[in-house]
Amino acid sequence: MSDSKPIALDAMGGDHAPHEIVAGAVHAVRERGLSIVLVGSPRVLYEALADHDATKQVPIVRAEEALAMDEGALASLRRPRSSIAIACHLVRRGDASAVVSAGSTAGIVATGRLRLKAQHGVQRPAIAVALPTLPNPTLLVDAGANADVKPEMLVQFAHLGTAYAELAYGIAQPKVGLLTIGAEAEKGNKLVKRAHELLQGSPGINFAGNVEGYDLLTGKVDVITTDGFTGNVALKTMEGAVRYAFAELRQTIEDGRLARLGAALQRSRLRELRRRLDAEAHGGAVLLGLNGTVVIAHGASKAPAISAACQLAADLSAEGIVAGIGERIAATHRSHRLW
Amino acid sequence: MSDSKPIALDAMGGDHAPHEIVAGAVHAVRERGLSIVLVGSPRVLYEALADHDATKQVPIVRAEEALAMDEGALASLRRPRSSIAIACHLVRRGDASAVVSAGSTAGIVATGRLRLKAQHGVQRPAIAVALPTLPNPTLLVDAGANADVKPEMLVQFAHLGTAYAELAYGIAQPKVGLLTIGAEAEKGNKLVKRAHELLQGSPGINFAGNVEGYDLLTGKVDVITTDGFTGNVALKTMEGAVRYAFAELRQTIEDGRLARLGAALQRSRLRELRRRLDAEAHGGAVLLGLNGTVVIAHGASKAPAISAACQLAADLSAEGIVAGIGERIAATHRSHRLW
Repeated sequence: MSDSKPIALDAMGGDHAPHEIVAGAVHAVRERGLSIVLVGSPRVLYEALADHDATKQVPIVRAEEALAMDEGALASLRRPRSSIAIACHLVRRGDASAVVSAGSTAGIVATGRLRLKAQHGVQRPAIAVALPTLPNPTLLVDAGANADVKPEMLVQFAHLGTAYAELAYGIAQPKVGLLTIGAEAEKGNKLVKRAHELLQGSPGINFAGNVEGYDLLTGKVDVITTDGFTGNVALKTMEGAVRYAFAELRQTIEDGRLARLGAALQRSRLRELRRRLDAEAHGGAVLLGLNGTVVIAHGASKAPAISAACQLAADLSAEGIVAGIGERIAATHRSHRLW
Repeated sequence: MSDSKPIALDAMGGDHAPHEIVAGAVHAVRERGLSIVLVGSPRVLYEALADHDATKQVPIVRAEEALAMDEGALASLRRPRSSIAIACHLVRRGDASAVVSAGSTAGIVATGRLRLKAQHGVQRPAIAVALPTLPNPTLLVDAGANADVKPEMLVQFAHLGTAYAELAYGIAQPKVGLLTIGAEAEKGNKLVKRAHELLQGSPGINFAGNVEGYDLLTGKVDVITTDGFTGNVALKTMEGAVRYAFAELRQTIEDGRLARLGAALQRSRLRELRRRLDAEAHGGAVLLGLNGTVVIAHGASKAPAISAACQLAADLSAEGIVAGIGERIAATHRSHRLW
C-alpha cells in the first residue's frame, strides 16, 4: 500500500472500548502490517497497550472526551474534543488516512459531517453496508444516515455505491437496484417513483430497475439505493430474521435423541457459519461522501472486527475512494450542464 | 360458528388457480366444516370439482373475467365482473360473510376499496400480516396497501391492529410498537416522529414506543404500526433473509461426510420447520378497515394454504372484526370531540 499515513482509530467508542479496540489495533499492526494511531485518553490507552507489550508499536493521540453510545447528533456539537472529533481532525489536517470508530452511528455521522464536511457536490453523505451475498457483496446505500431524503439524493446514493463497488470490489459497471415494493416502474411511494425516473436517465449509472426486500440477499444487483429510514429498517429486519432462523433451527436440530446426535456432528460447522454471517453482517459500514474515509464498526465489535474494519479503511483509502467519488459527482454535474 | 353464510373464494386468483384453489375449497368444506362458494368460470370450476367428486358440496357463482397476477389497481376499475369483484359483491349484498383471494395484492386492495368501501371513519384500509412469533403472532400493519401515508394514518393502523389482536388472539390491551430506526422518541423520519407524538396521547392504544427491524420476530409487541411502503419492504426482507439462512445452513450441514450423516438425521425435521415457517409466513394477510372481511392468501398458495385462509376468514368474520373496528374508530372520534 502506497499510503503510509496511519488509520485514526477512535479508542473510546464502542460497547467494548477501550480494551477490545486496543486489542484490535495491536492485531491490525502485528498481523496486517497496518499503521494505526489510537485516539483517546492517554493514561488508559497506555496501560491497555502495555498489557500487549505494544506501547512502542501504536502511538496515542490525546482526546479527553468521548461520545457515549447513546449520545446522538447534538453531542458532536457539544464535544469538539471527543475522540471521534479528534480522529476526524487528524484526517482533515492530513495526519491520518482514514477514521475507524465503533461508537454511536448517529454521533459518528454528525461528527463526520461537521469536521470533515461533505465532498464538493455531495448533498448528503450516506452509509454503505456490504451484505453477505456471493461472489460479491451487495452494497446497501443509505443504511441509516438520512431519514428524510429527496429523489435526487437516491441518485447520488447510487453514485456513491457505484464508486464503492468499482473501487473496493473491482466490479465494472455495477448494477444498481432501487429498493421498493414491486418490480414494475410505478410500484412504490412518491419518493421512489420519482427516483426511478431520474435513475433511468442518469449517465454513469447502470440502472437495473426496482428490487424488493427479498433481493437484499440474492445478489441480483451490486448496489441497492434507498433512503436511510427504509435502508436501516431493512438492514435490522434482515439481521433479526437471520438470528430468528438460527434460533428456530437450533431448537429443531436439538430436539429428540437421534436428532441430538445429528446436531453434535454439526455443531462446530453451525458455529462457524453463525460467526461468518455475524462477522459479515457487522464487518463495517462506510460513511461515503465526506472529505475522508470513515468506517463505522458495529458497536458490539471485539478485536477481530476492529482489526477488519481498520483493513477496510486502509484499503478504501489506498484505492482512492474519496477521489473516485469526487470524480463521479463532478462528471454528473458536467453532464447536467450539457442538458 | 354461528355465522352460516359462506366464504366467497376467488377461484381464479393465484399462481395455482383454479385447481389448487378448488382443492383448498374442498378441503375447507370436508375437513374444516366450512361453507364455501367458489367464484369464477362455471365450466372450469365444475370440472375441477368433479375431479374431487365435490360438485354437490361446493356451489359456484359465475364470473367470466379474472384479474391477472400482474394487473394492478387500475384493472379493478376496468373489470367490474372479475372474480374478485363478484366475490366482494357477494359480501356487500349479504350473501357471503368474507372474501378470500390469492390474486394480485394490488388488485385485491383496489377492488376491495371500490366494491366494499372503507368503514365509516377509516381513512385507509390496511393490510395486516401475522408474523410467526410465539406465543402470539406479532401483527404488522400496514404490510403494503398504502405507500404514502400521513401520521394520523399510522394511528389508525394501530387501531386496526389492536382490534385484530384483541378479537383474533384474545390479547387484552395489545402492545403497539412504531417501526422506526432507533428506540429513542426522536429517532426516525418526519412521518414517524409526528406519529410517535400522536400515539402517545391516543386513548384506546397501549403504545409501547418505538421498535426496530430486529423486533419483527422477537414478539416484543403485539402490533407493529408502519406505512405500507416500509412494512412491505420489511416483510419481504424478512422472508428473503429466512430463505437465505436456510440455504446457507443446508449447504453447511451437507458439506463433508460426517456432516452428511448428521444432516440425514435432521432432514425430516428441517423440512418440517421450513414448512412451518413458510406456512406461517404465507398464512394469509387480512385487509382491515373495509365493510367486510377480506383475506389475501399468498399468490403461491396451494390447497392447504387456501384452506387455512378460508378458516382465518371464517374466524375473523365470526368474531366480528368489522364491527369491532367500527366501534374502535367511532370511540376515537368521540374522544377527539371531547378535546
